[in-house]
Amino acid sequence: MVSEYINPLVIQRADPQIYKHSDGFYYFSASVPDYNRIELRRAKTINGLAHATPKTIWRKHDTGEMSQLIWAPEIHFLNGKWYVYFAAASTTEFDENGMFQHRMFVLESIAENPMESEDSWIEKGRVETPIDSFSLDATVFTLKNKLYYVWAQKDPTIKGNSNIYISEMANPWTLKTEPVLLTKPEYDWEKQIFWVNEGPAVIHHDNKIFLTYSASATDENYAMGMLSLNDDQDVLNPNAWRKSEKPVFTSNLEINQYGPGHNSFTVSEDGTKDILVYHSRNYTKIAGDPLYDPNRHTNVQEFGWDVEGYPVFGSPVNYNYE
Amino acid sequence: MVSEYINPLVIQRADPQIYKHSDGFYYFSASVPDYNRIELRRAKTINGLAHATPKTIWRKHDTGEMSQLIWAPEIHFLNGKWYVYFAAASTTEFDENGMFQHRMFVLESIAENPMESEDSWIEKGRVETPIDSFSLDATVFTLKNKLYYVWAQKDPTIKGNSNIYISEMANPWTLKTEPVLLTKPEYDWEKQIFWVNEGPAVIHHDNKIFLTYSASATDENYAMGMLSLNDDQDVLNPNAWRKSEKPVFTSNLEINQYGPGHNSFTVSEDGTKDILVYHSRNYTKIAGDPLYDPNRHTNVQEFGWDVEGYPVFGSPVNYNYE
Repeated sequence: MVSEYINPLVIQRADPQIYKHSDGFYYFSASVPDYNRIELRRAKTINGLAHATPKTIWRKHDTGEMSQLIWAPEIHFLNGKWYVYFAAASTTEFDENGMFQHRMFVLESIAENPMESEDSWIEKGRVETPIDSFSLDATVFTLKNKLYYVWAQKDPTIKGNSNIYISEMANPWTLKTEPVLLTKPEYDWEKQIFWVNEGPAVIHHDNKIFLTYSASATDENYAMGMLSLNDDQDVLNPNAWRKSEKPVFTSNLEINQYGPGHNSFTVSEDGTKDILVYHSRNYTKIAGDPLYDPNRHTNVQEFGWDVEGYPVFGSPVNYNYE
Repeated sequence: MVSEYINPLVIQRADPQIYKHSDGFYYFSASVPDYNRIELRRAKTINGLAHATPKTIWRKHDTGEMSQLIWAPEIHFLNGKWYVYFAAASTTEFDENGMFQHRMFVLESIAENPMESEDSWIEKGRVETPIDSFSLDATVFTLKNKLYYVWAQKDPTIKGNSNIYISEMANPWTLKTEPVLLTKPEYDWEKQIFWVNEGPAVIHHDNKIFLTYSASATDENYAMGMLSLNDDQDVLNPNAWRKSEKPVFTSNLEINQYGPGHNSFTVSEDGTKDILVYHSRNYTKIAGDPLYDPNRHTNVQEFGWDVEGYPVFGSPVNYNYE
């Protein structure tokens, strides 16, 4: 698949999200390699995001539950206000289960322009779930005027690092319903080195809803899985979702595209094409802790739909900068 | 001046150098905001550098003279081998004069391809000067088969942070002659907040040699100055150089381009146009220590020459990404 977009699009940004707003801007958010702040950038075109100047909108605290490992911020516009969801920890240490200790938090902008100032973002606190455990990678979507929250979380009774859950929200920072488990690591490709389901993203196409997620360790084993259901079904009914037995997007070893995932979705400038946004590495030999290797880069590529209405993501495209 | 290049070209990279090599690649080097490593990237076009994947070629030591604040690496190809010059400190603390404590170091590549591997770069040690003092921002140039070293250094007998010196080199890591002082902070625009001359860059045009440098504090006061001499004169004779009384490149407040400087020079893809490479900020209100604000971005723009053969840099151009 040949893309009109230049890849890698954004250097040294993992867990990328591109959000196209009605103001004509694409907003870009991602984990910064220092994991110490939340940046936004915006541009009128997707390629412009490579050059758009970042604005720091929030910084980690010196101590406490929002003081370490700021991961995977996502920006959303809900009921006329901007929100940023992110995960943070109180420490870089693992807990007794060998897991990071993230929880989920949300910011609200009191300004119309989310790029305005650090001072215009206020902390709405932690998004609480019934289990107090490792949780991260929140995203939201609206369906039939209801707001839903989808995230990854550890359940101590389930083997592995994290599973994907959904709840309806009472407001953008509070869950309304009991979390429903949608997927946990089951297949071999979800259990490589680590048993992981994380990084959910939702897209609504024709009469179906698709929920992609990322599985296994974040090295070359990292791969995207997918759930789907018809949009006349209840998204809170776990039995209504169908899980793909095979991954829908994986490493392309021939062109050194390793561990694609933690995706989001956007659309082309003319609104006619769907765009997959994800990160990948272009090498596997990492010196030191992979968490602190900054070279997960953001890629974007168009994707299409098969005759049954399912997305066809293909394979990571080659870098095409000159 | 309208540029065909997209600005800012490289996000969050200060002290930029672009080196066009005979292999058809532009090599890009700069200070990374973490100041903890040296990265190279390369592309066939200048705009491609925005997307080119960085390669870490060297990391700071855990302790010792190369363990902190890795600044302003420059790559050069000399006598058939690749070298990288950089500055490093043993501590982030100031010395008794309130100065950083950098010294200058050099790496040599044993591989033909400078991007090959971290293992292919060997440390040639410190570039020693007669005074053991704060020194940084080394660059080199060749004239009539002689290699010259130009750098910034503190002289305890001269007021201010640093001055610009030149020496001939015995080899790419050893000075051959006594350092000659070429310029020190003298004019008002060189003494704003801090008395600084640093970041030298050399360009040879027709029968003249120009040495640009950056002056004053690295905020909106930062500005470029220039020395020049005819190339039939002795570059080691300080009296042969003429210093511009006015800065040659300064902030453009109307378009929020602040503190342009620490420049280097390259040429367009077709070899016909000279390109100024520099960093600037697009805001002045910085939260916390400006040293750790990552948002000095690399800009590039063409420049021309006046009838007397002097460069006309104009003013920082507006960002033009879309």
